[in-house]
Amino acid sequence: MSRVVAADDNMSLPFFSPELSHVSSCSGASSPTFAQLLKNVGDTRNMETPAPGRDQHHVDMDLASPDRSVPFVLSFNDLTYSVKVRRKFTWRRVPSDPIIGASSEGMTKTLLNGISGEARDGEILAVLGASGSGKSTLIDALANRIAKGSLKGNVTLNGEVLNSKMQKAISAYVMQDDLLFPMLTVEETLMFAAEFRLPRSLSKSKKNLRVQALIEQLGIRNAAKTIIGDEGHRGISGGERRRVSIGIDIIHDPILLFLDEPTSGLDSTSALSVIKVLKRIAQSGSMVIMTLHQPSYRLLRLLDRLLFLSRGQTVFSGSPAMLPRFFTEFGHPIPEHENRTEFALDLIRELEGSAGGTRSLVEFNKGFRQRKTEPRTSQTGLSLKEAISASISKGKLVSGATTTTTTTTTNTPVYTIPTFANPFWVELAVLAKRSMTNYRRQPELFGIRLGAVLVTGFILATMFWQLDSSPKGVQERLGFFAFAMSTTFYTCADALPVFLQERFIFMRETAYNAYRRSSYVLSHSLVALPSLVILSLAFAATTFWGVGLDGGLMGFLFYFLVILAAFWAGSSFVTFLSGVVPHVMLGYTIVVAILAYFLLFSGFFINRDRIPSYWIWFHYISLVKYPYEAVLINEFSDPTKCFVKGVQIFDNTPLVAVPQGMKVRLLATMSKSLGMRITSSTCLTTGYDILQQQGVTDLSKWNCLWVTVAWGFFFRILFYFSLLLGSKNKRR
Amino acid sequence: MSRVVAADDNMSLPFFSPELSHVSSCSGASSPTFAQLLKNVGDTRNMETPAPGRDQHHVDMDLASPDRSVPFVLSFNDLTYSVKVRRKFTWRRVPSDPIIGASSEGMTKTLLNGISGEARDGEILAVLGASGSGKSTLIDALANRIAKGSLKGNVTLNGEVLNSKMQKAISAYVMQDDLLFPMLTVEETLMFAAEFRLPRSLSKSKKNLRVQALIEQLGIRNAAKTIIGDEGHRGISGGERRRVSIGIDIIHDPILLFLDEPTSGLDSTSALSVIKVLKRIAQSGSMVIMTLHQPSYRLLRLLDRLLFLSRGQTVFSGSPAMLPRFFTEFGHPIPEHENRTEFALDLIRELEGSAGGTRSLVEFNKGFRQRKTEPRTSQTGLSLKEAISASISKGKLVSGATTTTTTTTTNTPVYTIPTFANPFWVELAVLAKRSMTNYRRQPELFGIRLGAVLVTGFILATMFWQLDSSPKGVQERLGFFAFAMSTTFYTCADALPVFLQERFIFMRETAYNAYRRSSYVLSHSLVALPSLVILSLAFAATTFWGVGLDGGLMGFLFYFLVILAAFWAGSSFVTFLSGVVPHVMLGYTIVVAILAYFLLFSGFFINRDRIPSYWIWFHYISLVKYPYEAVLINEFSDPTKCFVKGVQIFDNTPLVAVPQGMKVRLLATMSKSLGMRITSSTCLTTGYDILQQQGVTDLSKWNCLWVTVAWGFFFRILFYFSLLLGSKNKRR
Repeated sequence: MSRVVAADDNMSLPFFSPELSHVSSCSGASSPTFAQLLKNVGDTRNMETPAPGRDQHHVDMDLASPDRSVPFVLSFNDLTYSVKVRRKFTWRRVPSDPIIGASSEGMTKTLLNGISGEARDGEILAVLGASGSGKSTLIDALANRIAKGSLKGNVTLNGEVLNSKMQKAISAYVMQDDLLFPMLTVEETLMFAAEFRLPRSLSKSKKNLRVQALIEQLGIRNAAKTIIGDEGHRGISGGERRRVSIGIDIIHDPILLFLDEPTSGLDSTSALSVIKVLKRIAQSGSMVIMTLHQPSYRLLRLLDRLLFLSRGQTVFSGSPAMLPRFFTEFGHPIPEHENRTEFALDLIRELEGSAGGTRSLVEFNKGFRQRKTEPRTSQTGLSLKEAISASISKGKLVSGATTTTTTTTTNTPVYTIPTFANPFWVELAVLAKRSMTNYRRQPELFGIRLGAVLVTGFILATMFWQLDSSPKGVQERLGFFAFAMSTTFYTCADALPVFLQERFIFMRETAYNAYRRSSYVLSHSLVALPSLVILSLAFAATTFWGVGLDGGLMGFLFYFLVILAAFWAGSSFVTFLSGVVPHVMLGYTIVVAILAYFLLFSGFFINRDRIPSYWIWFHYISLVKYPYEAVLINEFSDPTKCFVKGVQIFDNTPLVAVPQGMKVRLLATMSKSLGMRITSSTCLTTGYDILQQQGVTDLSKWNCLWVTVAWGFFFRILFYFSLLLGSKNKRR
Repeated sequence: MSRVVAADDNMSLPFFSPELSHVSSCSGASSPTFAQLLKNVGDTRNMETPAPGRDQHHVDMDLASPDRSVPFVLSFNDLTYSVKVRRKFTWRRVPSDPIIGASSEGMTKTLLNGISGEARDGEILAVLGASGSGKSTLIDALANRIAKGSLKGNVTLNGEVLNSKMQKAISAYVMQDDLLFPMLTVEETLMFAAEFRLPRSLSKSKKNLRVQALIEQLGIRNAAKTIIGDEGHRGISGGERRRVSIGIDIIHDPILLFLDEPTSGLDSTSALSVIKVLKRIAQSGSMVIMTLHQPSYRLLRLLDRLLFLSRGQTVFSGSPAMLPRFFTEFGHPIPEHENRTEFALDLIRELEGSAGGTRSLVEFNKGFRQRKTEPRTSQTGLSLKEAISASISKGKLVSGATTTTTTTTTNTPVYTIPTFANPFWVELAVLAKRSMTNYRRQPELFGIRLGAVLVTGFILATMFWQLDSSPKGVQERLGFFAFAMSTTFYTCADALPVFLQERFIFMRETAYNAYRRSSYVLSHSLVALPSLVILSLAFAATTFWGVGLDGGLMGFLFYFLVILAAFWAGSSFVTFLSGVVPHVMLGYTIVVAILAYFLLFSGFFINRDRIPSYWIWFHYISLVKYPYEAVLINEFSDPTKCFVKGVQIFDNTPLVAVPQGMKVRLLATMSKSLGMRITSSTCLTTGYDILQQQGVTDLSKWNCLWVTVAWGFFFRILFYFSLLLGSKNKRR
């Protein structure tokens, strides 16, 4: 306990700093770091790390270069990126667009055209420009989100090209959309992020400390216990949501932080507070690179470097303070009281509309930069590994980094960065816990599905109330089973929107290796099971005795198991679809269509032996076939039960209208001819015969059940692969 | 023709002014007005209007008060509006909110708390405040979009409370969402709006003139020929879209223009151009009232009056120029270079977070207004009718206003304002033309539906290929018909999103009586018909001969008619649902569920005579029943066709497995017993018998067809009522 208290005493350290009060001054390198804190208050696992005797101060001395610690420089040189624009066959005119150049094989649009520059830790670099100017493309290029082959030019961190694994560990990309679990509180959301992305070696109480510090840093203390909310549930405000999204992505204290329009959709006050948060993050030793829409005057003061783009070209690059001089020399001085960025963006837009375009400004900017830019050392002298190590020593967390060895030559610790911060089973537990928490708080979602199942069960039970064992009753039983099995599948389709919503969160989280895709797939399956059991039980219980199905308790149990298997297969199928379809409506249409075909080919509408040979393969991949046959066998397997008895033999023939006495006489004559005695109570058709007639002969009932279950697993595996392929998250 | 040329020469008149170049100066009252233009170049109908001898200039003299023409003053006094907040049963905490006061029966939230003020024509009044401050609520209150009983206080125009009809004729409300037909060009979109909302007396060429002038005024000349676009189709930019939305609502040159966040989602340059457009509109004699998010410095210069709200209370009201003095006197001077509105909003937010809240500022504002507000005449001396008449004379259009009589006492013309600008048949034609244009440009929508129908038709045809007339074949025919009829209904469900998208446009347009709801319902039905005919033909042709259905050409024609009727009923049903469900997913789920129940009760799964008596009503309201029975009767009505012949009598009995020779002998003995000769070629079951067995006996095939068609009309009528009830568009 005393350790936690000790950690509490250190709340003023940079990493846990609740409020970095002096926004304009840089935090000194002299304050104790989180690494030291870890060493001081570390739990037993931490104490076992090698090099316990080394003086931490010594490392500090080693790395603190005379001109303050500027270990990180991100340089980009001559970035060029074009995409092919396909000509669509349409009736309307294509608006003339000067960026699109016609070529022999379609059109090429240059999104980035020779962009160069650099960013440093401790600073905010803002990329500005009209929409379509290439802002977001540039951020994507810097964040390594454009496929290697497509992007020309190079991006280096301290002179080294980042590999993907390293990139994911030390950087974060905050997207424009706030994709959050609606029913978790702010604190829970951040805590789950901490569990995913902070090193396993950190104890839970320290993760909590980090979350609490982050809540203070983000200025969302008042909202900490409030749920995120969605359309149906009142939650936190848009600005708070934005800050929570940022919080999730910076929980591991990244060295490189990319943001796409972090202030879009926020009012000026919320926007300012978001940028203030980013300023604090930068000053804690990160480099913040973002696109901005329309920075206000006060917001502008927080930015260190600006990069104005126009149609993929740099038209200004430098500090905000340089703007007036730049435009004065260009011959368009900024009027007093005018917002500088607004003026600049308007002027750029005006030039874009003019005959010469922005060429004059692009050229002027090149000259201006050569003349005016203060010389900067473009290198820090530190290699990337050294810089990262130094940074970790100074308090940076770096997702899951652990000290493994001390290299003898340099006497500095080497940090290895695993791909994932946690082992598989931890991810599984945390993911399951998060899903359960989120689901438990919106019981209406499950309530609606349960209601739908109960209503359908009730309608079916009363419609097919106590079916008799006559030939007509048999036909109705077949209809009931076909309808009931389809219902289970259709009910699963209702969960599609929930899965799709989750998929977007999943894609954001796995883009930077918050957890393994496999743990997500497994946790997703596990969390779904309890509700499927309840749904199956509800449906089985309402229909089994109402319709008067056969088999007693054992029959009921098997019936329940088949329905559960059908729910499992159906939900796996829908889950898989949610992994491949882009949006809900399309998914729903596809599910409904495919399920209709499954039903058509299940063997109910047309028996297996009557299906044309060129369609028989569809019968075998019909998901509905297996549970349908399983319940049929379950129903008609009792050898003592009779479905056509004595004169019932005429029920499905034209002779059904003949008087009863005549039927008995007919039966007697037929007995004689056949040479076997058939009385009114002789059983002529058993369940076995019915199964033969229906063509249900190829699998036993248990095999049908297992095949259904196997389909479920098959679709879960397909879901896994769809996630692997679908979440590449890069431009081509 | 010369008249059109004359009109062209008058392009510089206010109403057609392509560019009101001097934004800061007020337009004089001396330029000739559109009413004069109408008089000068009016077509014959116009020439027939009474009072032809009156000198228009005389009216001008009459009304031009010495201190310029300010005929309109909108005053609002002590507006107060509260809503009850229901406590939801949830696990999460309700965040403490000082505006929500707990009361004995739930909670009450005061959205507006004693707001007073006024707006004048020629000016822009901007309502500012954080989200949740009551901005949008105030605009709704002023625009008469809050139900009478709920809103306390009063809103008057020139001292008179506006009635709803008058309000709709002289005002416009521009919503935040741009609800536009994606495949129409900008010009077409505005032209359709002109056809709906401009008086019928205006010739088409003059409506076109108005549209061209508006395109210039809105600054969207470059985009005029480009389609609006959507996710799948590249169209105009967000700012242009916004301006088109505004253009639609101001096509009739309204006196009162309300806008909710007209600049949201736009970059600063686009936002500025939108406000410049609004400024021009104001200066043409309208009053512009809008909520604003975050006005930039240059945008602020265009506003005439500001109203800052905080939690439903006024915290500042006056001209932008008064802001510095206000805050200086309040003790918080605005620092130089700071954006005034940003500063104000931040200060308000700070105060909201403080213990005393904004009470001090609210009180200070009251005192400040009493001391500083320049005295204004709160009335113009003109009654509302007089002012509107004067305004019309001066060039305002006012939707559909026509001069009907000259009152002898005042010698000014009296304008009557009809509820709708056009007669029913014109609306019908224009609506149909617009829908057709929009659909024709996205052939893929229809293509997908046609593809779905063809694929299903192909699968069904090959699956049920050339069914025989054996007892098994009969059973399969029944299955085919049930599946085929359900398919037609399910295919209709795919149109749900299109209908829903249109509904939102419809609601916006009818909110201000652009056209009758009945014309919309009728045009919607008419436009749908051609595509339904093609879909029916495609489905009927692919399945009829493939499956081997009976009746030759006449049989095919009836089959086609039944499918057409089913498509008609289905699309009416889905259209009706699109009028009552709030969003696509829910609608789709409901359609699928209801159609499944329709199928269950159609008579296929369980014959009519076996349906429990408590469910028989559902059988009769099952939409699927009628087309299903119609095609059954069509198929089985041939008295010469045989479905059970000779030994086939044993096909559906346990004796089916008996050798052929034995069956023949059995048949012979049975013949003897029955006292009738049954040979191998004797027909034992005709189509009539099958219909009897299936319980299809209550309606003839033509009656089934008519009932199906009638269902379609029934749902169209329900759709009409759902639109009547659903588009009230007011807060309660």
